[in-house]
Amino acid sequence: MPYEMELIQFLLEYSKEQIAEYIEDVHPADILDAIHQYEGNRLELLNKLPDAIIASIIDYAEDEEKYELLTMFSDAKQKEIVDEMSSDELVDLLGSIDEEEKNSIIVKMKKEDADEVKELLTYLPDTAGGIMATEFISIKETMSVGETLKYMQMEAPDAETAYYIYVLDEVECLKGVVSLRDIVVNNFDEKIAEIMNEKVISVPSDMDQEEVGRIFEKYGFLTVPVVDYNHKMLGIVTVDDIMEILSNEHTEDLYRLAGLQEGEKVAGTVGESVKSRLPWLFVNLLTAILAATTVSLFESTISRVVALATFMPIVAGMGGNAGTQTLTLIVRGIALGEFNYENSKKVLLKEIGVGLSNGIAIGLAVATIGYLWEGKPVFGLVIGLAMFLNLIVATIAGFVVPVTLKKLRIDPALASAVFVTTVTDILGFFFFLGLATVLIGYLV
Amino acid sequence: MPYEMELIQFLLEYSKEQIAEYIEDVHPADILDAIHQYEGNRLELLNKLPDAIIASIIDYAEDEEKYELLTMFSDAKQKEIVDEMSSDELVDLLGSIDEEEKNSIIVKMKKEDADEVKELLTYLPDTAGGIMATEFISIKETMSVGETLKYMQMEAPDAETAYYIYVLDEVECLKGVVSLRDIVVNNFDEKIAEIMNEKVISVPSDMDQEEVGRIFEKYGFLTVPVVDYNHKMLGIVTVDDIMEILSNEHTEDLYRLAGLQEGEKVAGTVGESVKSRLPWLFVNLLTAILAATTVSLFESTISRVVALATFMPIVAGMGGNAGTQTLTLIVRGIALGEFNYENSKKVLLKEIGVGLSNGIAIGLAVATIGYLWEGKPVFGLVIGLAMFLNLIVATIAGFVVPVTLKKLRIDPALASAVFVTTVTDILGFFFFLGLATVLIGYLV
Repeated sequence: MPYEMELIQFLLEYSKEQIAEYIEDVHPADILDAIHQYEGNRLELLNKLPDAIIASIIDYAEDEEKYELLTMFSDAKQKEIVDEMSSDELVDLLGSIDEEEKNSIIVKMKKEDADEVKELLTYLPDTAGGIMATEFISIKETMSVGETLKYMQMEAPDAETAYYIYVLDEVECLKGVVSLRDIVVNNFDEKIAEIMNEKVISVPSDMDQEEVGRIFEKYGFLTVPVVDYNHKMLGIVTVDDIMEILSNEHTEDLYRLAGLQEGEKVAGTVGESVKSRLPWLFVNLLTAILAATTVSLFESTISRVVALATFMPIVAGMGGNAGTQTLTLIVRGIALGEFNYENSKKVLLKEIGVGLSNGIAIGLAVATIGYLWEGKPVFGLVIGLAMFLNLIVATIAGFVVPVTLKKLRIDPALASAVFVTTVTDILGFFFFLGLATVLIGYLV
Repeated sequence: MPYEMELIQFLLEYSKEQIAEYIEDVHPADILDAIHQYEGNRLELLNKLPDAIIASIIDYAEDEEKYELLTMFSDAKQKEIVDEMSSDELVDLLGSIDEEEKNSIIVKMKKEDADEVKELLTYLPDTAGGIMATEFISIKETMSVGETLKYMQMEAPDAETAYYIYVLDEVECLKGVVSLRDIVVNNFDEKIAEIMNEKVISVPSDMDQEEVGRIFEKYGFLTVPVVDYNHKMLGIVTVDDIMEILSNEHTEDLYRLAGLQEGEKVAGTVGESVKSRLPWLFVNLLTAILAATTVSLFESTISRVVALATFMPIVAGMGGNAGTQTLTLIVRGIALGEFNYENSKKVLLKEIGVGLSNGIAIGLAVATIGYLWEGKPVFGLVIGLAMFLNLIVATIAGFVVPVTLKKLRIDPALASAVFVTTVTDILGFFFFLGLATVLIGYLV
């Protein structure tokens, strides 16, 4: 990537002053990429950057890398950098390290910042409070547009986002919001009270971050204010943080459905991947043994009609697939907020309907194949009926497993194909081999 | 939901003028929700709203609902509403309807808007050009901050976003960007050329929307400018559109892996779900028949050692799971841009390493179980070795299937568990039953 090489060259060759002037225009995410590419002494490169830029670079680094980057610097320099970081960035950094490391950073903060960060750390990390920043711009409704503009010229540089300005009353309760656009298009002597939007949508500090994400998606917000139960304004959540959170939640859903652990990277090491996957494979082994046990109960039937073994993969494969279809739909529906208590009964009935319809279609097809393959109508009946029953079981299991987990406050994606497939394997084999045992007289 | 009821009451009871004054502060997404809840005459409710609000409501509706909403109104009113819609909203609307309906809307636009929209429709819908809006604010670098502010007071109300102002040269090439925040915190006589950021990151109009999404995620942008190959600025993409696109892409990935079709809703009808899922179940039936055929080749072996049938679900289940793990990691790695040509060889080698390691662990475990279950060491050897080989095949298949599809420019998620499972089923049964056939003398 030539741009990163160019950046490295520039950082190496120019003086600290020249860099300070030019580097403001370069996006910190690109500087971070360049540093990742550089194989020489990274500290030398980093030391040529202004503190505020280093703080932004740390913000764009992955959570695990933040502490490593910061502690490359001398204690004095760390203090300067920490001073430039916003409260939510500091909380992200501190959330990824242990107690001792945490304290070593907190002592480097100004007392005021340390107190703020300590308070933010009391919120659960996955809630609005845990992801908010406290650097927002607030004004009083009695101010004019001109006064607000002047106030912003002082405050904007430190704020997390300057595009929304919050109007608070004497006890810091949220009364309204004006956008910077409103400020720009209105007359200087207009009062804020006249132009502010009083119907401001806010979120409580204990709202789950995924639900906060849904609010951003619904309204197309750039920022949302966070309030406590007295409607006192505590902070703001910004859309860039939400995008990262939603992306991580999506990865988590996909991974959990497949039995991978959070944090496994496509470009990781063999050891990391084995650690992520082997536990799930052992869980799957236990459930597969249950399915095997079911089959073993019917060994004498299979020994008399060995064609039953041939059709076993069809029973298991189709049931597993139909179950995974329903499971995926329910897990995604929960994540998007489209599935809830109000429509759960309707959805269950629909899924049973789908199981019935697909069961009839696939059951008839498989019955025909079985009849043609073995030349015995009863063989077709046995495999067709087993398939029909298994597809109904599959849709019910695909519904019940994630919904039950959700009720138990466990992530429904953890239902993962493994568990649903266990149900369809065991019951599928039971229907198929059980029916064959009952009708064995017609099969041999 | 009491808020929506309140809104409906308000719309029913108050006059058009009173509503116009108050409704500005209500978010269009909430008005849309209220309209969905209302069971009376919706047109009556909608007709009380100002045209600009109706245009925003249509923007927040699902693509399929937009046309339906717009065509509720009289032709004259439709003209007014269309006039208030921004170019990307019109393109979204026109993209979801047929040619005839499309023309019926285009004739209602002003010639200038119609030309613009027709040009936007020439871009592929899934590219930066297909999702951009042309309503951005542009200035010249010779302007001062004060002049820019004045210019904005005229232009901002129509712009899609006013938080970034683009600096263009005489031939409309993108030279730089200033944020509204820069405008607010600088002196009125400062020249734009002095404060603009010249290192502005832009995307070409033919960039895939998923890649545009990754750029938003990497940089935390609110807006990105779209340019042609001469660097002429064409439009902007905003973060709210990107969030919707990313959410849809995530749903698509999850659905395709599970064999569901785009557009299936958790709260949809039985008919829609059957239409979405049955084709995939039939694909799966075909692949399951291939697995069954493999088993049928070994029927005589199974008839001699019927315990082989008991262990078949373990072979198939474990292989399918291990394959799905790799598949999911690769599909997500491609979506996140973390997997590419440069690291593909390294990732393949890692996956083979993971297959070897997990294969040894699971192979030993299954060999022990097989030995204890059947009391024959060779039985343990056969199932253990088959499992070891199948787990290596599983990781390779989980890698090769999506990577091949990507090379063929087919969505790698379409690889779906179905295909990878077919490979692991067929080869797993082949290893297991084949080894048993070779060593049959030690098993009976």
